[in-house]
Amino acid sequence: MSELRFDPIKRRWVIIAAERAQRPDDFAREPAPPAHANCPVCPGNERYTGHEILAIRDPGSAPDGPGWRVRVVPNKFPVLRVEGALERWGRGLYDVVSGVGAHEVIVETPDHGKTLADLSLEELLDVLKVFRSRLSDLTRDVRLRYLMLFKNHGIDAGARLGHSHSQIIALPEIPDHIARKLRSSHDYFRQKERCLFCDAVRQEVGEGDRLVLDAARFVAFVPFASAFPFEVALYPRFHSHDFTAVADEDLLHLASALRDVLGRLRSTLEDPPYNLALHASPPPHPRPGRPGLWDSLALDWHWHLEIAPRLTRIAGFEWSSGFYINPVAPEEAARYLREVAPR
Amino acid sequence: MSELRFDPIKRRWVIIAAERAQRPDDFAREPAPPAHANCPVCPGNERYTGHEILAIRDPGSAPDGPGWRVRVVPNKFPVLRVEGALERWGRGLYDVVSGVGAHEVIVETPDHGKTLADLSLEELLDVLKVFRSRLSDLTRDVRLRYLMLFKNHGIDAGARLGHSHSQIIALPEIPDHIARKLRSSHDYFRQKERCLFCDAVRQEVGEGDRLVLDAARFVAFVPFASAFPFEVALYPRFHSHDFTAVADEDLLHLASALRDVLGRLRSTLEDPPYNLALHASPPPHPRPGRPGLWDSLALDWHWHLEIAPRLTRIAGFEWSSGFYINPVAPEEAARYLREVAPR
Repeated sequence: MSELRFDPIKRRWVIIAAERAQRPDDFAREPAPPAHANCPVCPGNERYTGHEILAIRDPGSAPDGPGWRVRVVPNKFPVLRVEGALERWGRGLYDVVSGVGAHEVIVETPDHGKTLADLSLEELLDVLKVFRSRLSDLTRDVRLRYLMLFKNHGIDAGARLGHSHSQIIALPEIPDHIARKLRSSHDYFRQKERCLFCDAVRQEVGEGDRLVLDAARFVAFVPFASAFPFEVALYPRFHSHDFTAVADEDLLHLASALRDVLGRLRSTLEDPPYNLALHASPPPHPRPGRPGLWDSLALDWHWHLEIAPRLTRIAGFEWSSGFYINPVAPEEAARYLREVAPR
Repeated sequence: MSELRFDPIKRRWVIIAAERAQRPDDFAREPAPPAHANCPVCPGNERYTGHEILAIRDPGSAPDGPGWRVRVVPNKFPVLRVEGALERWGRGLYDVVSGVGAHEVIVETPDHGKTLADLSLEELLDVLKVFRSRLSDLTRDVRLRYLMLFKNHGIDAGARLGHSHSQIIALPEIPDHIARKLRSSHDYFRQKERCLFCDAVRQEVGEGDRLVLDAARFVAFVPFASAFPFEVALYPRFHSHDFTAVADEDLLHLASALRDVLGRLRSTLEDPPYNLALHASPPPHPRPGRPGLWDSLALDWHWHLEIAPRLTRIAGFEWSSGFYINPVAPEEAARYLREVAPR
């Protein structure tokens, strides 16, 4: 079983996924994603995955066979597993948690040749509905403290399948980046009785020079302190902390905004590799010993998407300092993205 | 001039180095490091760099000409500059600091074909003395709050020169990773009156299964919660917070330990790309408005080196969560590194 280990010096968790054990020479070359002919998530190859967890299917089609439009399956090499007891223990200075969680793959289209940006509005809406449904279902497992939904597009962004997909890793601890945002927004709300994210959206809309898309229900902008060139944040304009409670009508607005942003990135940067993540609120389970911090989510969290093209190499300075160097001014990146025709 | 910008949601600084301004199509392909014949830091090509800041030279050789063994020059594309006023201002929610600092390149050998692991003990000692000397000199500039010394070895670790070198970026703000370690060790000392790093070293020596090298003055181990496979930490066994005050004799011990560790990584992983960083104490300048946190460095900081081979690809999960997945158990990695003959 994997382990989560906490570093008390760096104050961060890592997953030691020793089940994936590798010998030193395994690192010589990372395997290329399988060719289309051998794609394990294409229609007709359903036997190569675990049993489907959820699918949007044509009427009359049977589970684990063709006829699906979006299909969710367990990750074949999960970093965390649903089975087993959640245990916490110490080892001298260090903290350990057993590797309990979940690791799912959302196959976004049956068409191996399509990317997320190629999907029609209706197809993208189906994908977002599946995201909402899986997050909603996993929220019921009280062992899980965060549900990280993310996407790797392109080999340089870490994709190991050539077929368009997203993943959910459900964790028994709140990840560091989310914990910090929770703390920032919680502190801010306590001080000002306003949502930090709402204020950021208001400032971006007001200043305008980092805006990429300014729609009725959603707004996209290049963050003021972007770590990566052409990074885009996509926020609901309305205060909303719980992604699982978003109405169908707003999901449609979101699909439209996301399609626009992906199209702009593709036009500007010629189908760049990118990572996308949904920063949803954590499941609202009571957290022993941490009163106050996660009890006001409805007031101080505001879900959003982050999309970061992978254009630059991260080197020693970034790894050692946590300080990022962005060679493109956010205002310049936004201008390029605003002025291009999405395609 | 570049700007440092602070994200109040993620609580981290970035450098917007817009002087390096790039258009979207500049990202299509990163340029390969120049070939040996065109290497700008080889002996005989001194005119291609800025004036040397420091060099260890043969007697009678002139500055900015051949005859050096280690040579420090300004980075040709600095992310921060020494010139200009250090100013801090706000812009709505955000904080900005002018891009004042320094960016130096330490050319570690005149021989284009040698890596750091190829250097003799005496040559490596010279490199470490130059590190100490540059850090000591930069510490005098009261505008600088942290001096990040790091090395990129190999293209996949971000090296843009084929010639062995390290860099120093001197910053007007404490980087996030260092600030966290300062806080961890400060809190720990206040609670226990012991150095957190000393305790970690003691635990590693005691448990032994993550040890790589156990020498009289230095110890190297694979951290318990390593984020990256085959990561190694190198610590003085004796409590020492100030790298600029390390005695020549201990620098020789350090050169010997570092040479051993680099040789073990090279044997085990066949000259892997890696990043190396020195986590020295911050310059002990008084910090207005932050009493207490940086005033006890001598008691609670403990300098060390971090060396991380770049073997795995960082993808959406890591970027969005800050949670790392390490596919090699630290105990396994340490066993490989311990059992190999360094070369």
